[in-house]
Amino acid sequence: MKLSFILQSLESELQRQIARLEGLSAFHEMLTYHMGWSGDGAGAQAQGKRIRPLLLLLTVSACGGEWQKALPLAAAVELVHNFSLIHDDIQDRSPLRRGRPTVWSQWGIAQAINAGDAMFILAQLALLDLGTVLPPQRVLRLSEIFQQACLELTRGQFLDLSYESRTEIGLDEYWRMIAGKTAALLSAATWMGAIFAGAEEEIADAYREYGHYLGLAFQVQDDYLGIWGDEAITGKSAASDLVSGKKSLPVVFALAQEGPFAARWREGLIAPEEVPHLAEQLIREGAQAYTRQAADQMTDLALQALRRADPQGEAGEEIYRLTRALLQREA
Amino acid sequence: MKLSFILQSLESELQRQIARLEGLSAFHEMLTYHMGWSGDGAGAQAQGKRIRPLLLLLTVSACGGEWQKALPLAAAVELVHNFSLIHDDIQDRSPLRRGRPTVWSQWGIAQAINAGDAMFILAQLALLDLGTVLPPQRVLRLSEIFQQACLELTRGQFLDLSYESRTEIGLDEYWRMIAGKTAALLSAATWMGAIFAGAEEEIADAYREYGHYLGLAFQVQDDYLGIWGDEAITGKSAASDLVSGKKSLPVVFALAQEGPFAARWREGLIAPEEVPHLAEQLIREGAQAYTRQAADQMTDLALQALRRADPQGEAGEEIYRLTRALLQREA
Repeated sequence: MKLSFILQSLESELQRQIARLEGLSAFHEMLTYHMGWSGDGAGAQAQGKRIRPLLLLLTVSACGGEWQKALPLAAAVELVHNFSLIHDDIQDRSPLRRGRPTVWSQWGIAQAINAGDAMFILAQLALLDLGTVLPPQRVLRLSEIFQQACLELTRGQFLDLSYESRTEIGLDEYWRMIAGKTAALLSAATWMGAIFAGAEEEIADAYREYGHYLGLAFQVQDDYLGIWGDEAITGKSAASDLVSGKKSLPVVFALAQEGPFAARWREGLIAPEEVPHLAEQLIREGAQAYTRQAADQMTDLALQALRRADPQGEAGEEIYRLTRALLQREA
Repeated sequence: MKLSFILQSLESELQRQIARLEGLSAFHEMLTYHMGWSGDGAGAQAQGKRIRPLLLLLTVSACGGEWQKALPLAAAVELVHNFSLIHDDIQDRSPLRRGRPTVWSQWGIAQAINAGDAMFILAQLALLDLGTVLPPQRVLRLSEIFQQACLELTRGQFLDLSYESRTEIGLDEYWRMIAGKTAALLSAATWMGAIFAGAEEEIADAYREYGHYLGLAFQVQDDYLGIWGDEAITGKSAASDLVSGKKSLPVVFALAQEGPFAARWREGLIAPEEVPHLAEQLIREGAQAYTRQAADQMTDLALQALRRADPQGEAGEEIYRLTRALLQREA
């Protein structure tokens, strides 16, 4: 089981799906640029890690299915992820993505909205390609799961955007938001992989839960590293989530403590030179311990679900390996 | 065949589909506001004419199907139309739609992009509701037609947006753009209505063509009225397409003539007080005759296709009536 071969096949499939727009080359180019295949700085580092489709394909294989046949489904998941990134970048006014100018900063907001829309529709068309390899009833089942996950994504995005105008949010609001923004699509990916392969309901449910908790664990860890990761602390304090004002889990926890950190937070934006001190303050108030504990708990739940799913063969080992790599990363 | 009863049933179905977001009431409200059901100025005049879903339901009935069962499909078409309007309004920076503030001017660009995305996903979920009344194979066929029409819509939108930065476009570019922006969804609506009802391929094709030419004829007539309609000429010259700089068919035709109108157009934006004179100039250069001829030709093609489709019963008569009303409107 060569991961590199799977990733290469996935990339070809993505290119095939996006080629539906080839007839309008200037339009097509906006999408290939975003995918990291064209324009200045194109190449592997501009393409993203393709985690979701990779886990989907491995799940298919670990459930005894042929991952090659599931490539259009994996592509659909990655296309939706990228649709959401294109729109996210407009919504957050982010100038850069993976080190390159974002689509909107390159082509303007109007065209970027439309490019995102097209990316999403291409995902729908990719999913329909399954009609040649699966019974129609199963394609519809997958489509239902897929659309529900997409709706969940917009719910999470709605919450995230509405939190921006508020100084603070509660822990329950935090969890609801990341369930939509981070976990929904990952959960759908592993769930759909199992259903594609014809796994029993119980197994498919275990994969769904695995993806869900993996997504949550991953986000919580991302939040941890955004404050106590190497880059956030040393040297590039400006990259700290504290400076961007992100309502990440440590911050949300500390706000509920009503201690010195909460008092400082409410006074306004945090400057890079305050970061080391405030990162320490968060530790004193228990935010680091809470965040680590939450990450551990979500990781445990993900691994428990994965054990119930009992992934088979080489692909199964690869899923365990990938899970560990995702959750124990240090930066 | 009471149109008012069909429209009322459609409105209930649309409300049912959008209710999937009820759990997040502030999010749900953005969509019900856009649909004309809530907020200041809610009511019939804020809801749009629902032409596409109405023609779809009439087609189902005129092909011997039960229109009630096709309500989710009709809703899907109307939801996609409204998704495109929400994004259009952001792209065009339009402050008003149907006399009320647009979603983006009410909630900001970021939330409006997301509301449009949600509207589109609700359309996908509506379509999947057909699984309870149709064989899965046919649902997939309808989905394929639907997604292709949506992709066509984004192609048309890409062209429209890219034309904005240019002083002029050619006639072929004009036709390509409106084929995507106006005709694709209308064509899919009538085509899908026929396929829903199980019509023979030949009949379904005729309905597809009918919708296509109806869309083109409608757009060309809209372009005509935008320059020579009552409102554009008398009193509200500021409402003229000439003032907004729209590359409508009369303008595109005149630009190719390289006469006095083209010379004036290239000098920059047209002021309201110039409108009566330039509308006359366009007539002298043959733009009015050309536009009227194009509208007549598209109308003829639509009616020819409709005759081949041979819509049956009361619904059939209603389709003819509606077609005439749409194409002979004076304002």
